[in-house]
Amino acid sequence: MATYPTRTQVGIIGGGPSGLLLSQLLHLQGIQTVVLEQHSREYVLGRIRAGVLEHGFAALMREAQCAERMDREGEIHDGFWIAHDGRRDRVDLKGLTGGNSVVVYGQTELTKDLYEARDKLNGIVIHNAEDVKPHDLEGAPYLTWRQGDEVHRIDCDYIIGCDGFHGVSRKSIPKDKIREFERVYPFGWLGVLSRTKPVSPELIYAKHERGFALCSLRSQVLSRYYIQVPLTDTVEQWTDDLFWAELKRRLPDKVAAELITGPSIEKSIAPLRSFVCEPMRFGKLFLAGDAAHIVPPTGARGLNSAASDIYYLYHALREHYQQGSDAGLDAYSAKALARVWKGQRFSWWMTTLLHRFPERNPFEDKLQDTDLAYLFSSEKALASLAENYVGLPF
Amino acid sequence: MATYPTRTQVGIIGGGPSGLLLSQLLHLQGIQTVVLEQHSREYVLGRIRAGVLEHGFAALMREAQCAERMDREGEIHDGFWIAHDGRRDRVDLKGLTGGNSVVVYGQTELTKDLYEARDKLNGIVIHNAEDVKPHDLEGAPYLTWRQGDEVHRIDCDYIIGCDGFHGVSRKSIPKDKIREFERVYPFGWLGVLSRTKPVSPELIYAKHERGFALCSLRSQVLSRYYIQVPLTDTVEQWTDDLFWAELKRRLPDKVAAELITGPSIEKSIAPLRSFVCEPMRFGKLFLAGDAAHIVPPTGARGLNSAASDIYYLYHALREHYQQGSDAGLDAYSAKALARVWKGQRFSWWMTTLLHRFPERNPFEDKLQDTDLAYLFSSEKALASLAENYVGLPF
Repeated sequence: MATYPTRTQVGIIGGGPSGLLLSQLLHLQGIQTVVLEQHSREYVLGRIRAGVLEHGFAALMREAQCAERMDREGEIHDGFWIAHDGRRDRVDLKGLTGGNSVVVYGQTELTKDLYEARDKLNGIVIHNAEDVKPHDLEGAPYLTWRQGDEVHRIDCDYIIGCDGFHGVSRKSIPKDKIREFERVYPFGWLGVLSRTKPVSPELIYAKHERGFALCSLRSQVLSRYYIQVPLTDTVEQWTDDLFWAELKRRLPDKVAAELITGPSIEKSIAPLRSFVCEPMRFGKLFLAGDAAHIVPPTGARGLNSAASDIYYLYHALREHYQQGSDAGLDAYSAKALARVWKGQRFSWWMTTLLHRFPERNPFEDKLQDTDLAYLFSSEKALASLAENYVGLPF
Repeated sequence: MATYPTRTQVGIIGGGPSGLLLSQLLHLQGIQTVVLEQHSREYVLGRIRAGVLEHGFAALMREAQCAERMDREGEIHDGFWIAHDGRRDRVDLKGLTGGNSVVVYGQTELTKDLYEARDKLNGIVIHNAEDVKPHDLEGAPYLTWRQGDEVHRIDCDYIIGCDGFHGVSRKSIPKDKIREFERVYPFGWLGVLSRTKPVSPELIYAKHERGFALCSLRSQVLSRYYIQVPLTDTVEQWTDDLFWAELKRRLPDKVAAELITGPSIEKSIAPLRSFVCEPMRFGKLFLAGDAAHIVPPTGARGLNSAASDIYYLYHALREHYQQGSDAGLDAYSAKALARVWKGQRFSWWMTTLLHRFPERNPFEDKLQDTDLAYLFSSEKALASLAENYVGLPF
């Protein structure tokens, strides 16, 4: 039987980037943490997710002393493109924000770096923890989990739920103590990962009458492309050839002509959802990231919204343990939600700006065209987009 | 039988502010015009309409040599307020736009000034012209109308339709030659005009869970207040007392406490509608203002959008008559529509930002709250609002 500590200061549910980052940041401040992850490390590292990090997120990775490889291999993107009406216009993030950029670095790589950092400090990350359950959240909280036939328990001062949308954390809060807000979109993103040179060194978001498309990348040899598809479509329907042909149709001719195609090494359809749960605290349980909120991927707010939760929690927990003040913890939910909702607003706006909505009437289609026309006619509108894309201040 | 000219260069249908302004501007350039108006002058001057003029509109009034009283009696507004959540925040138009403002001057006064200017130059404005009809729009256009039993005809080079949403001009275009875009809103504005000191020297747009309200004014002794009401309401239901009580409920306490009430001298309910017709030209007929497009009143784009059409037409007709070039006339529809749609976008945005939409779900209500929270947290978002409110460049 494995031996694990029976008490820690901060118990963290979920070994994805949020949980690992918080664990690492707190460890460096001398605050004890234990991370419980239901899957294996290999499984976690196999997930293909986001790749655009706000400058504030990158700063947090540096504070966590995990930024060496990100700073070496990650790519600074000073802008991105919006393709529409057969051409493309650039959003000059750096110029519009007075010097801010984003870092393109795959979530998989980032998680790998965080695991290595945790290992180096002998951080406790328990994998394959089944049936994780938080208990006595309004009293003396503890966590239980199972590994095979063994049931374990750990007592904590606080429990942090970083276990995603489907995780146990949010579900442990009594229904009458939270309110959920949701919008489901009538389409999904079909994504393809391929070991090909990206068609553009900077991302291209494409609005097209056939539907949205995105040319993204993880590195200059690893491309990530997406097209908007009906939710009724299946991955099996979309052969690589069909995917590339459809993607090309949605790009300006000049871009399509330069697209290098290759076999997909991953292909999946993700639904688009906006979701927020309020408040993000119940007793001594604090929710962070996807456990409390989901955005559509347009505008790359998902991982970044999680990072801002971690930023607030990290500072609140330091305040508690280092200064004996609970002000940060008490303010956490309201503070985190204020920024979460701004991320929701931006994701919703980028999504409605660029996707084809089958239920829209012609007036609404025209408004969408005008949104784009106004955007590229106004330095002020572009500056507003840019400040959201690089990340609003924490 | 009255004698009227049988030929002119530019025949204008509609003697509201758009038609009069164009007629005056062209006259000063030596271009002949005749204005046909189906109502009496008294009727036209009895209409209570908009009162917020873009700085570009004010400049056009000066170019038309009709600005003396506007510049003396009109009020420069360097900002306005948005009330929400029990308080109000100011939008500093002048600061945010680098020096631009709006002029508050009632449409009735403006129309009176235009009539006087037309009279002074012996401009031809024919009132009580019944059954106005444009003919042979793709050939040698002419207008016919009736006064009692007399039928008149005038031949024109061009016909300009400034006769509003219900006018004959747009209806004269074959259905298959235009496309109409429309959005109807599930509420209207109940407006009250009263001879009372306005509660605030600057406009207050109020967002409230009971519905939108607006504290506007025509001068410092003439107030114009509005509240959002269901379209099923009637003016008869709304006694003055009920109106003032409901208005106060929707304003921050401090504002409500200072509201001076008095008997209404006008009370009406206006539906909210977004409407655009494309193109704005058919042969030698050109549409301008409400004849081609309608906006909800939020954000004061209606009269101002009309003014931008007049600006483009005025320059296009000068180009034609003074330089022999039709480039401006040929570009008119596309140029005017590009700006019209931006006005539509802004009106739609201000309307959705501030009104209560009964059909919205809680997620959408939260997005609306967040739009406002983001707006007042971002200098860039405020600057974008301000540049639209004072009027985008022609």
